Amino acid sequence: MKIIENNRVFAFDSKNECVAEVMDGETVVFRTHDCFDNQLSEEGSCIGALNWDRINPATGPVYVQNAKAGDVLKVEILEIALDKQGVMCALPENGVLGSLVKEESVKRIQVKDGKVHFNDKLVFDVTPMIGVIGVAPENGSINCGTPGCHGGNMDNKRIKVGVSLYFPVFHEGAIFSLGDVHAAMGDGEVMVSGVEISAEVKVRLSVIKGISIETPMVENEEICGVIYSHEEIEKAVFHAVRIMNERVQENLGLSLNEAGMLLSAVGDLRFCQVVDPERTVMMCIPKKIMKSLF
Amino acid sequence: MKIIENNRVFAFDSKNECVAEVMDGETVVFRTHDCFDNQLSEEGSCIGALNWDRINPATGPVYVQNAKAGDVLKVEILEIALDKQGVMCALPENGVLGSLVKEESVKRIQVKDGKVHFNDKLVFDVTPMIGVIGVAPENGSINCGTPGCHGGNMDNKRIKVGVSLYFPVFHEGAIFSLGDVHAAMGDGEVMVSGVEISAEVKVRLSVIKGISIETPMVENEEICGVIYSHEEIEKAVFHAVRIMNERVQENLGLSLNEAGMLLSAVGDLRFCQVVDPERTVMMCIPKKIMKSLF
Repeated sequence: MKIIENNRVFAFDSKNECVAEVMDGETVVFRTHDCFDNQLSEEGSCIGALNWDRINPATGPVYVQNAKAGDVLKVEILEIALDKQGVMCALPENGVLGSLVKEESVKRIQVKDGKVHFNDKLVFDVTPMIGVIGVAPENGSINCGTPGCHGGNMDNKRIKVGVSLYFPVFHEGAIFSLGDVHAAMGDGEVMVSGVEISAEVKVRLSVIKGISIETPMVENEEICGVIYSHEEIEKAVFHAVRIMNERVQENLGLSLNEAGMLLSAVGDLRFCQVVDPERTVMMCIPKKIMKSLF
Repeated sequence: MKIIENNRVFAFDSKNECVAEVMDGETVVFRTHDCFDNQLSEEGSCIGALNWDRINPATGPVYVQNAKAGDVLKVEILEIALDKQGVMCALPENGVLGSLVKEESVKRIQVKDGKVHFNDKLVFDVTPMIGVIGVAPENGSINCGTPGCHGGNMDNKRIKVGVSLYFPVFHEGAIFSLGDVHAAMGDGEVMVSGVEISAEVKVRLSVIKGISIETPMVENEEICGVIYSHEEIEKAVFHAVRIMNERVQENLGLSLNEAGMLLSAVGDLRFCQVVDPERTVMMCIPKKIMKSLF
């Protein structure tokens, strides 16, 4: 098992130098900073003093042996251990209500004994999840704040312990990294931040040969899902549904029309986030209907 | 208890003649036709022969005593008894995948013993819900296929037994009707139809004085939600989040920024449908956080 210690990148890029090489099937621990690179951890630190070049760091990248362009990288999320303090913020012109936000707020939030202490009265369970996770994109450099077919800032609250994620591999070694853990986040992440927190994340990285996919997919005990990100929600929806329809056709031997009707009857279209430069949605089908993605 | 027998309207309109008058707090049963006005029930009947003027009928309307403009109509869904056969369809240029649908399909589906028999192998539980439900809109006539602040074709799968819905009242008597029941439907209703079915729906209609709301809201044991429909998903999202933020501020004594951060951490933004002329979304907050909407 390898431990990757806060070696951070701020963009997914095949040119990033890998800080470790892991075997196909190996377990790896990533120690991550929060989405502000821990710059707001100290009482009194404020948005005004932020270095915006250090937003959404991902720890890594690691080179996965045996991974070649055209393969699939399987990432099993095994453990997420949270730090003891999270932070949230509200910023004018950011998030769904940005036009109504008159001044910035920064809120440090205690996280202990499995609970988020939002304030003295409002205490709720942690729901740890990973915001930024992915591989080097096919072309160029994509900053860690933006999601896409390589993964990135998908802010999908189903990326939590117990899930298997699948990524297209575009480059030898996959060049994988993750960061931006949240102690809690709702579907949509409507004010731009979840309960942002540093953490230690254990995953298993495996290479699957003989299958190619075009966008991240996800599987847990309850659902199979296709994740798609696009500047326009309607287009993200089209592609997520199109790809899931293809999976259903192949898995269950149905026509396009029948697979679509099945998705219309039992599939769920979900918002992941609507506040990053590209919006992320997920089309799901229950495991009771389709037992596995592949 | 009154029984409303298939008196159908195809638009929500304050000029529609009410077919019954009910007391404030009375229980009412609506017998409904499916969204095709049962025109596709017979084996061999096809889309080509459909009279499109008879789509999405709502049974009613009823005049609710004591309801005045500016009040709120509370609708508790008490029972939904389904017919024994549902129907689904896929149509070129309709729904998320309309551009890929080459020819129409009509699929009649048996519904018995609480199960939807999609085909010989695929059998799943019924999840009965109401697609079309609402009051007369403030102005003009809105066809039953279109949702809005009056309700209408919201296709929200949480409108099921055990839920309380709240509608703004725009006209004396509220002028309430419902129809378009589904035996099953997933969030998004991606191919335009759920498992469309005729049904008998029992609701209780009550008037709440002293509160005005601008859009339908919903409450069940798990969540409080604000429903909003708009031609553009992004605008539907903005308004649903804005209104839920106002409710959270008032209920929990938080500022706009704090209420927004709370929604970002524990609230869920949901798709209801993305296939009607206006798209419908819902912003929810768990009942563990906010015990009631008002």
